[in-house]
Amino acid sequence: MSSLNEAPIGVFDSGLGGLTVAREIMRNLPREKIVYFGDTARVPYGSKSRQTVERYSRQIVRFLKTQEIKAIVIACNTATAFAIDAVREEADLPVIGVIEPGARVACAETGNGRIGVIATRATVGSGAYTEALRSLRPDVRVIEKACPLLVPLVEEGLLHDPVTDEIIMRYLDEVLENGVDTLILGCTHYPLLRSAIRKLVGDSIRLVNPAYETARSLAELLEEKQLECTVPRSADDPSPYRFFVSDQAERFAEFANMILPIDVSMARLVRIEDY
Amino acid sequence: MSSLNEAPIGVFDSGLGGLTVAREIMRNLPREKIVYFGDTARVPYGSKSRQTVERYSRQIVRFLKTQEIKAIVIACNTATAFAIDAVREEADLPVIGVIEPGARVACAETGNGRIGVIATRATVGSGAYTEALRSLRPDVRVIEKACPLLVPLVEEGLLHDPVTDEIIMRYLDEVLENGVDTLILGCTHYPLLRSAIRKLVGDSIRLVNPAYETARSLAELLEEKQLECTVPRSADDPSPYRFFVSDQAERFAEFANMILPIDVSMARLVRIEDY
Repeated sequence: MSSLNEAPIGVFDSGLGGLTVAREIMRNLPREKIVYFGDTARVPYGSKSRQTVERYSRQIVRFLKTQEIKAIVIACNTATAFAIDAVREEADLPVIGVIEPGARVACAETGNGRIGVIATRATVGSGAYTEALRSLRPDVRVIEKACPLLVPLVEEGLLHDPVTDEIIMRYLDEVLENGVDTLILGCTHYPLLRSAIRKLVGDSIRLVNPAYETARSLAELLEEKQLECTVPRSADDPSPYRFFVSDQAERFAEFANMILPIDVSMARLVRIEDY
Repeated sequence: MSSLNEAPIGVFDSGLGGLTVAREIMRNLPREKIVYFGDTARVPYGSKSRQTVERYSRQIVRFLKTQEIKAIVIACNTATAFAIDAVREEADLPVIGVIEPGARVACAETGNGRIGVIATRATVGSGAYTEALRSLRPDVRVIEKACPLLVPLVEEGLLHDPVTDEIIMRYLDEVLENGVDTLILGCTHYPLLRSAIRKLVGDSIRLVNPAYETARSLAELLEEKQLECTVPRSADDPSPYRFFVSDQAERFAEFANMILPIDVSMARLVRIEDY
């Protein structure tokens, strides 16, 4: 094992929703260091085109590679849906996205073979979840539903609010009518609505959080590539986690501290279009 | 008068909301040609920083200048609030934004001197409306309120919907409690909610639509600079209006035809970060 094992994992998202993935990596792989990049100057990706999301993702990979990372986690469903191939090509490092890990668990756990996916318009439009689920289990029936208002509602902090409940129910009505027994929360913001969704759909539906499944897949990938960090984190390591954004660095801590199990005091600003 | 009088007006916005301004120019200045640019690859600006909005606006001006325009209309409240000085410096052409025209009318029409402004978080944070209103009439009291959910609701087409009404009332409660008699719709998407807002606030409150006032100010500016188009539009001019976007050109017509009085078949794609 070389010092590469002690290198950080690069984690990126269109904005700050991907911190739900970073959180699961922190909880489940406590030895690993993280470099997080959130593209807050160009957020959201969920309403943008494949071509644009690919170009932005390549720029981010070029930035992350300056941070001497050992692997990349695409902590954004839209970027995974549109750009995982571009990221792999650009990175020349092990790469995982959030779609395949969630799809794998959903296929393993569904009883009746009917799986719902809620996600951004771009992710649904890409058909990436249906493709991933069907390649794992060709017999499943997949009902995908774009939920464009959920990210703004989460970003306004309306996690427990009758308006949010009403909007969730409108989106889920069609999905539930199709008799799904498993629902993938296919956008990194949605785990923050997990308890609202649980309350509305009841206990009989299994909710899949790709953030958690991605952290587990990352552990497997690092082991397979013999890249896992074997050194316990030193108590006086000042910065196992570093955060970069392309805009609003001073507002980062506000949202980050709502999600992360650690106190984040700051993020550094990167002019991402220069990469 | 030179052929410069027949040159188009450059109109830009963070996305497609600025088409409400283009619409008023089409209606009120029917001889003028328009080149519209919507920054759909980086929309929205309303949650971004001054520095980023300035940089993006300068790139757009450099693009518009390649189209041989005679003047620029910043059809975006956030870009006006943050970047009008940068745009003037970069353009070296007559420039107007949407804030001053709306502020002027509000000051002229308020009876009790209490003016409400609803806008994006960035526009409100900039204080640009309060500054513009106070410089015109130092005695007015201004109540500004950020309404971040209204743009997503408009973009979902929920113009007449109980959820939208509920959200509007939450935002307006505080504004109305302060006894305003005039309300500026300080975001280019909000005129599309005009009838919903009218229904909720009643007839006693004057609603100011900066899009309309901006078209009137543009007419005055062109006259003052002797730049108005004096030639009636030829019936066989194939393209008095040209539309450019930085992403999703194929989705442009969908939204544009909801707003514009003409049929728009397409927009051309511009890679705006190259400017």
